[in-house]
Amino acid sequence: MATKNGGFVALLLLLSFLLSSPLPARCDAPLPVNVWPKPTSMSWAEPHMAVRVSSSFHVVAPSGNAHLLSAARRYAALLLAERYRPLVTPAVNVTAGGAGAGAAGRGAELGYLTLAVSDLHAPLQHGVDESYALEILPACAAATVTAATAWGAMRGLETFSQLAWWCGRERAVLVAAGVRVEDRPLYPHRGLMLDTGRTYFPVADILRTIDAMAANKMNVFHWHITDSQSFPLELPSEPALAEKGSYGDGMRYTVDDVKLILVSCAGEFWLPDASDWPSRLAAEPGAGQLNPLEPKTYQVMSNVINDVTSLFPDGFYHAGADEVTPGCWNADPSIQRYLARGGTLSRLLEKFVGAAHPLIVSRNRTAVYWEDVLLDQAVNVTASAIPPETTILQTWNNGGNNTRLIVRAGYRAIVSSASFYYLDCGHGDFAGNDSAYDDPRSDYGTSGGSWCGPYKTWQRVYDYDVAGGLTAEEARLVVGGEVAMWTEQVDAAVLDGRVWPRASAMAEALWSGNRDATGRKRYAEATDRLTDWRHRMVGRGVRAEPIQPLWCRNRPGMCNLVR
Amino acid sequence: MATKNGGFVALLLLLSFLLSSPLPARCDAPLPVNVWPKPTSMSWAEPHMAVRVSSSFHVVAPSGNAHLLSAARRYAALLLAERYRPLVTPAVNVTAGGAGAGAAGRGAELGYLTLAVSDLHAPLQHGVDESYALEILPACAAATVTAATAWGAMRGLETFSQLAWWCGRERAVLVAAGVRVEDRPLYPHRGLMLDTGRTYFPVADILRTIDAMAANKMNVFHWHITDSQSFPLELPSEPALAEKGSYGDGMRYTVDDVKLILVSCAGEFWLPDASDWPSRLAAEPGAGQLNPLEPKTYQVMSNVINDVTSLFPDGFYHAGADEVTPGCWNADPSIQRYLARGGTLSRLLEKFVGAAHPLIVSRNRTAVYWEDVLLDQAVNVTASAIPPETTILQTWNNGGNNTRLIVRAGYRAIVSSASFYYLDCGHGDFAGNDSAYDDPRSDYGTSGGSWCGPYKTWQRVYDYDVAGGLTAEEARLVVGGEVAMWTEQVDAAVLDGRVWPRASAMAEALWSGNRDATGRKRYAEATDRLTDWRHRMVGRGVRAEPIQPLWCRNRPGMCNLVR
Repeated sequence: MATKNGGFVALLLLLSFLLSSPLPARCDAPLPVNVWPKPTSMSWAEPHMAVRVSSSFHVVAPSGNAHLLSAARRYAALLLAERYRPLVTPAVNVTAGGAGAGAAGRGAELGYLTLAVSDLHAPLQHGVDESYALEILPACAAATVTAATAWGAMRGLETFSQLAWWCGRERAVLVAAGVRVEDRPLYPHRGLMLDTGRTYFPVADILRTIDAMAANKMNVFHWHITDSQSFPLELPSEPALAEKGSYGDGMRYTVDDVKLILVSCAGEFWLPDASDWPSRLAAEPGAGQLNPLEPKTYQVMSNVINDVTSLFPDGFYHAGADEVTPGCWNADPSIQRYLARGGTLSRLLEKFVGAAHPLIVSRNRTAVYWEDVLLDQAVNVTASAIPPETTILQTWNNGGNNTRLIVRAGYRAIVSSASFYYLDCGHGDFAGNDSAYDDPRSDYGTSGGSWCGPYKTWQRVYDYDVAGGLTAEEARLVVGGEVAMWTEQVDAAVLDGRVWPRASAMAEALWSGNRDATGRKRYAEATDRLTDWRHRMVGRGVRAEPIQPLWCRNRPGMCNLVR
Repeated sequence: MATKNGGFVALLLLLSFLLSSPLPARCDAPLPVNVWPKPTSMSWAEPHMAVRVSSSFHVVAPSGNAHLLSAARRYAALLLAERYRPLVTPAVNVTAGGAGAGAAGRGAELGYLTLAVSDLHAPLQHGVDESYALEILPACAAATVTAATAWGAMRGLETFSQLAWWCGRERAVLVAAGVRVEDRPLYPHRGLMLDTGRTYFPVADILRTIDAMAANKMNVFHWHITDSQSFPLELPSEPALAEKGSYGDGMRYTVDDVKLILVSCAGEFWLPDASDWPSRLAAEPGAGQLNPLEPKTYQVMSNVINDVTSLFPDGFYHAGADEVTPGCWNADPSIQRYLARGGTLSRLLEKFVGAAHPLIVSRNRTAVYWEDVLLDQAVNVTASAIPPETTILQTWNNGGNNTRLIVRAGYRAIVSSASFYYLDCGHGDFAGNDSAYDDPRSDYGTSGGSWCGPYKTWQRVYDYDVAGGLTAEEARLVVGGEVAMWTEQVDAAVLDGRVWPRASAMAEALWSGNRDATGRKRYAEATDRLTDWRHRMVGRGVRAEPIQPLWCRNRPGMCNLVR
């Protein structure tokens, strides 16, 4: 309703919606068109209606927030250009006549969508309010997104865009009408980690990935920007890092000069004795660890932290600290002397972290470390070096067990359990000259040679409960999760198919959960919706992998294991 | 040497090469540039030379074979447009001066390559001679490919193309010089099977795949064109097949009308009791089998065979016969009556095959069946229905054991053992509503829910010996192998990465083997070569998956498990 008090009226409508009788018993019945992630609540009045999108469709946004204005233009353009054809033709009635009916009796057309935002200038930081309400009224062809922040409004715009499709018969873009959505995420941290240290990804591929994340209402891009294999980040204060450490001229991310940094066991073969894993110098090929005894280390570290926090405005700074390999430090003469004088590897790590952490905090950031910094058996720091108030820990081992250890120690947790959320698992291992393949029976005992095999299917990702096994009190410290795309064997040629739609599975689990209203896991009901969502993503240029033959989508239930 | 007796001189040179002392001890030393599959023998005189490709480079082909003339133009264009930059800059000396030196003293440039073919009109059929010899002489910048047939000449052209690269420093395309190659395949049948029944693939994607196959010297495209889920092939005599059976208007392969065919258990849910696998109606969702008791079946079968053998000129006709599901036939009333009268399912299948086989043979084809037709425990035919002289069997179960059974029964074998050559394995299973995922410990016991998991790595594919465990006599009946791309969860968005470079691994194993001159498996030495070949394929438009981080290619041996 396009009234002066549009927002207030919308609010009244929402209140009445909340106070009305419980949702119809058929609330889990398949809808002709769906939104991924499934909204917290969505209703579509029956019979299902749809309205044509006017050729002059636009989004009315309050002025004062440039990002919101940009999103308004972007989504209006998306709607006007939409040619997404659903795999299964939606069964809807297209509105005819009524207020605003266009020439030639074409019926009401949707001319615009209005954005109503309470706090237009709320900054984009972790934990910002992303909730929204969306309403599309058929009779007078009006649509409204109401949100607390501009970021919530953008979530609403994305939902709106997924309720639109190209109807060949009408030769028009239609959008579902008689729809009410109320939506908010379960977890504030819903991320994808992309490793650009093992493999360089052109900026265009990263941007496309971030766009796809936004479409999936994911909100954290964890840019694992450097690693042992390459350092593509050009830092003004340390130019030699990218100059010497990047894969090449065309494979860097900023153009600045950096200086060389000193390391232990640099350039050594990573596994001197394949039969003695503890003697390794690194967890995988590419040996070399910072030497905390080397004074220059702190000069470079300080420069890196300063430059990176100037480059990236985010509230979190990921300081790594996973897989600190004892063998590497033990091979360093200076560290050998230190150990002989009574030092320990843990105190050595704490020396480093103890210097890095305050620097990070002084730049007004929360430090994120991999769980190892606290939980590693061999090399770990005390809690005093990483105060919980300024620290978040990211899990990757032992499923829910390590999550529990972390939250019980009082730390917030980002969950990335390898057994569920590591997207690289299952394509073998990349180490060469592996004689295990000489035995045709091997197949690596069905892990396929991948340390974290097998491949994590979308169902595995979807079904994971990041707070599983925790008490309600403990679960409050789980801020969310990240799927991790380690890239030893992934580059731009195959990126999309490896990330999507499995990341979409996590996106829904962390946005609105993986259970239905009765508390049962809802992966069965999610299957067709994910097929549709994947199809829409492909239409938007993301080469996501299919999850079933098309045959299945045309015959609901016929491809189930159990009918 | 550009003499009138060029061919004879080349032959003398080749003879002298063969009669000379054994290959240098460093014959397995890494070369600056390589060919995939590795040729049977290749030598590159030291110091390694390279010659510039002239801007007027062309391929001189004998007239009389249109395919060869087309290939000549195609490869000349490829050479002139080559911008492939090797991951590791080849260490070579670029020729300077000498006969044919261009203006400005740029040194000898390669102006043309000559094709010399003995049997220009040998038809392209299974078992055709694909051998060739290639010689690139540095001093006078001449190149020659000598082959028995036009098809061998094309193999030589492909090899030549892989010895060329773009040199930024010279700002020119260079090609290795002082090179002699003699090459021929070990196996006559080196194929890729693509399943366009589960998923439709646009013609452009199939053509790109076939181009990639040719680059890998693979020679059989096994087009698994229809299956339970869809029938995209338009046949003049049976139009209803594609009309009703295809996924849709835009998802067919020829435009003809077909008639509907009658089947047992059509449209039934495939697995009535998930706890009773033997009671299934199909091996996977999509139930329905031809009913050999239905007279119309033979009318349609005959029409299909006639139309398909008119459409496809190949000498082989694949007549399927895998996974004939007893439950489906047992559920059919007419078959139940047949069984009650003393019939058996095996005799029922033999009734069908006994009618199909003579038809196929009458069209002058060899019939290929999946191994099941002979080896299935429950439903199989006698040898009299499928005489070895006109039959080839394709394996997929029990590795070398079934290959042995087949050749011992006197049949030729095409090897596609699922445990090694099935490219679909390891990405889970596509059946929905699978409660196994409710158990976070499950992960399907590390098979990842894939019946043939885990994913078959390139090493697993490369290392497989299709004739392993056979006597020399038995091995003679193994005509080769096929990697199989079943497409329940693959479509055009992800096809390239799923097929390549793993199909390249089989391509080399079946072309020149997987062992070095001492008889040891050579996967370690193959790693860097495959990384380079994959990189070249990407440059040619094939979005193949990487096998190692770039870091590894820059540091030979450093990414090995054992140094």
